[in-house]
Amino acid sequence: MLGDSSGVPMRPTLRASLLALLPTLLVGQTPVPAAAPAAAAPKPSQYPVGVPGQLMKAIAEQGQQVANLQELVDTIGPRLTGSERMRRAHGWAQAKLTQMGAQNVHEEAWDFGFAWTRGLDQARLLTHNQMPLMIAHNAFTPGFDKPVVGEVMEPADFKLATLQALKGQLKGRILLRTMGARPAPGAPRPAGMPNPQEQDTLNQFLKEEGVLAVLTMSNKQYGLLTTGGRTFKEIGKAPVPAATLTQEGFKQLQRLLARKEPVKLELSLGGKLSKTPVKDYNVVGEIRGSEKPEEVVIIGAHMDSWDLSTGANDNGTGTCASIEALRAILASGAKPKRTIRVVLFSGEEQGLLGSKAYAKAHKDELDKVQAVIVDDMGTGRIRGWALQGREDVKAAMAGVISPMNDFGLREVSLARMGSTDHASFLPYGVPAFSAQQDAEDYFSHTHHSHVDSFERVQPEALLQGTQALAVTAWELANLEQRLPHKAPEAPREPAR
Amino acid sequence: MLGDSSGVPMRPTLRASLLALLPTLLVGQTPVPAAAPAAAAPKPSQYPVGVPGQLMKAIAEQGQQVANLQELVDTIGPRLTGSERMRRAHGWAQAKLTQMGAQNVHEEAWDFGFAWTRGLDQARLLTHNQMPLMIAHNAFTPGFDKPVVGEVMEPADFKLATLQALKGQLKGRILLRTMGARPAPGAPRPAGMPNPQEQDTLNQFLKEEGVLAVLTMSNKQYGLLTTGGRTFKEIGKAPVPAATLTQEGFKQLQRLLARKEPVKLELSLGGKLSKTPVKDYNVVGEIRGSEKPEEVVIIGAHMDSWDLSTGANDNGTGTCASIEALRAILASGAKPKRTIRVVLFSGEEQGLLGSKAYAKAHKDELDKVQAVIVDDMGTGRIRGWALQGREDVKAAMAGVISPMNDFGLREVSLARMGSTDHASFLPYGVPAFSAQQDAEDYFSHTHHSHVDSFERVQPEALLQGTQALAVTAWELANLEQRLPHKAPEAPREPAR
Repeated sequence: MLGDSSGVPMRPTLRASLLALLPTLLVGQTPVPAAAPAAAAPKPSQYPVGVPGQLMKAIAEQGQQVANLQELVDTIGPRLTGSERMRRAHGWAQAKLTQMGAQNVHEEAWDFGFAWTRGLDQARLLTHNQMPLMIAHNAFTPGFDKPVVGEVMEPADFKLATLQALKGQLKGRILLRTMGARPAPGAPRPAGMPNPQEQDTLNQFLKEEGVLAVLTMSNKQYGLLTTGGRTFKEIGKAPVPAATLTQEGFKQLQRLLARKEPVKLELSLGGKLSKTPVKDYNVVGEIRGSEKPEEVVIIGAHMDSWDLSTGANDNGTGTCASIEALRAILASGAKPKRTIRVVLFSGEEQGLLGSKAYAKAHKDELDKVQAVIVDDMGTGRIRGWALQGREDVKAAMAGVISPMNDFGLREVSLARMGSTDHASFLPYGVPAFSAQQDAEDYFSHTHHSHVDSFERVQPEALLQGTQALAVTAWELANLEQRLPHKAPEAPREPAR
Repeated sequence: MLGDSSGVPMRPTLRASLLALLPTLLVGQTPVPAAAPAAAAPKPSQYPVGVPGQLMKAIAEQGQQVANLQELVDTIGPRLTGSERMRRAHGWAQAKLTQMGAQNVHEEAWDFGFAWTRGLDQARLLTHNQMPLMIAHNAFTPGFDKPVVGEVMEPADFKLATLQALKGQLKGRILLRTMGARPAPGAPRPAGMPNPQEQDTLNQFLKEEGVLAVLTMSNKQYGLLTTGGRTFKEIGKAPVPAATLTQEGFKQLQRLLARKEPVKLELSLGGKLSKTPVKDYNVVGEIRGSEKPEEVVIIGAHMDSWDLSTGANDNGTGTCASIEALRAILASGAKPKRTIRVVLFSGEEQGLLGSKAYAKAHKDELDKVQAVIVDDMGTGRIRGWALQGREDVKAAMAGVISPMNDFGLREVSLARMGSTDHASFLPYGVPAFSAQQDAEDYFSHTHHSHVDSFERVQPEALLQGTQALAVTAWELANLEQRLPHKAPEAPREPAR
């Protein structure tokens, strides 16, 4: 059907009649999953009394979280761990913290692994019809110096035994790899999903066989590209080049293979690994406690992002909410009894590496940590904190968030959440909680995709989240009692 | 937030706890706009008696519409008017029609204009952060032999006077062009939206000023790219190179410009125009009428598509439904009284060019056309026919579709629809109707975008649509009376 994206208008009568019938054309907007209806925003006059209300008001009226976010994501851009832009973000954050009067502003190095820089990525179907396919090189996998050509093949699965049975047939091939359904909660890892050691063995085999590249399918539909990957510390552990196709492109290749016709692709994957392993950094800034400065409330978020977009939701929002929460407390002149420390981690996307390094480096001080609160679930409002089964802190945490109950922050669940930086503190017994946020379009669209952009952040929700961080941190810093720690487990090391 | 698109599993406990909280992760699917609930599909035993029921049963049991569609869109691929692949589709369709025993199978040439072949498209933000931006070269605009660099600029609007006021400042610039809101139904063209003649003048001015390229914004959100464009018959009328960015990328550039910082892009736009204007073709096949062979029911669809995906919905579905409707009638052995002719147009996307050429070439025979029915509104079920205000044919058309009333085909509205090929017959007074179909995800996602793929076609809906075409055509061919024609207007020429 004809449209007018060319900018050359349709005849007015056609345009008018078409539009009369097809109101969706006027909008051109994708409905997003309905969020729970937000509580009607209370008026400023309803802010709670005391410091929590002052902080909320200050953030609403002078908050820098949106301006900072735009600066961070639009100008510095994507912040892949180990990259030059991540390094720029470290400087940016320290400048912000210093400028607002934070104390003890510094960065703490940790060993990352090989860094990676995205180049230009392209794929073209050489057989059948020459059409270009959208593709994104998977970070931390080697690229090619020039375009390469290979025939596509789809093994039945990616178990080592299955691939070994194809020994001798894999040279120069481009392999399609489906990840399979994710396991149900609590279910064991499916047989086809290798653990990191098995993955290393698999990588080694694929390299020895001369596999050209492995292509995976985006985890989101409607043409969204996603990326992922882990780095490594020994160059011998580099995987074969890998990239992600849209669901639509990947399934087209599968259908062509099902026709038993040869399928050839030309691939350009321009990403490059660094020559040597690099360090990365966590950025720290704080306001010292007036009565118990050695006791610390940590507000955590991660500055690193994937690099197909600018990491606005993952985790620009958490980064800028954390910085603003500290700024508002500093600017208020109020003196927290305990120290409130912002730690902006990196390497989160490659396995919580920065926070693991931080926890390990500070393990002897962790018993003085009142709590760790981490904001890393996208743009949605913070509804509460997941207490990781800690029934023993539920009443105290309910009190901590009570000043914001009328502003949407009211849940203290026992839910156990993983996959963000609070989890690095759990093995040490520290009370460490992740924000529970409205999902909005996070997992359906923005998470790790090519549209995690400023455009997809909701300023009103970010305001509420920033207020929630500030109030929670303030109350934790001034709480009469210490939150009890659990007995430490043996600290866990990063998987690789 | 950490995910596991890397294929390297998260620790099982983290995975399980995350999944327990975030069920959307398990699905990873975008909700699509809710369609009107489909009537529960009647059972085959409920097919109507007589030929309509036979046709419906045959299409349900032996229908080739899905297999043909996959072959057309996956193997031949995108079918841009004037392209080599469009030419292959002409051959493919004639072979299909011949193979099924259609009569009078042939193609009819018409003059198109310059053809265009997509190359490889890339954009990179050179200032700020070097990030790649997804981009699609706009068809029928010139490309570059090698990457070019230019500073980005956004004029207040694209009125000629506004641009003329910038005379001397445009050389080497990349201009952002927002199309503005579409006019409300019946409203006059907004001042900022030039007509084709004004657009020619604008193009000429931009070329004289040495503008490097014009960038427009996709009409769909969440990272979908769309394309469009018109060809031209004199090389002097070629516009400046143009391309489309995602909404997210385009708005990022706008935000960077709003910071009053220089914004530079590197652009690779690989599309190429043909050296000379080319012809394109409409493909015809029919079953001759047994009693009134000179009277004709035309089933129309267009084979051409845009080329960011494979045109599965626009209009692979209509093409394959039309071919299958004719096949089912031929295979049934039933003899229609009037001729039933399938015409597969091309050039639809550039302004209904093929159907306009067909109507003009056959203008002396159009008074013998019983009706033209066109299927070009995506994958959704056909709910009825838009009768273009023809109250005088409403009762007859209600009778025509009555055999399928229980199968979802029951609407005869007076709606006026445009923007597809039936409209080319209206100036001649011919009863010419467009199918009214469930919208599904057509305008929100697939229409002219990079995901108009086989993946996005609903086989059950396509089956119903194919049955609707076959039954409507059969009944029109055997209707006692002729549908009355209106007095012809002066035939309209293509705008350019």
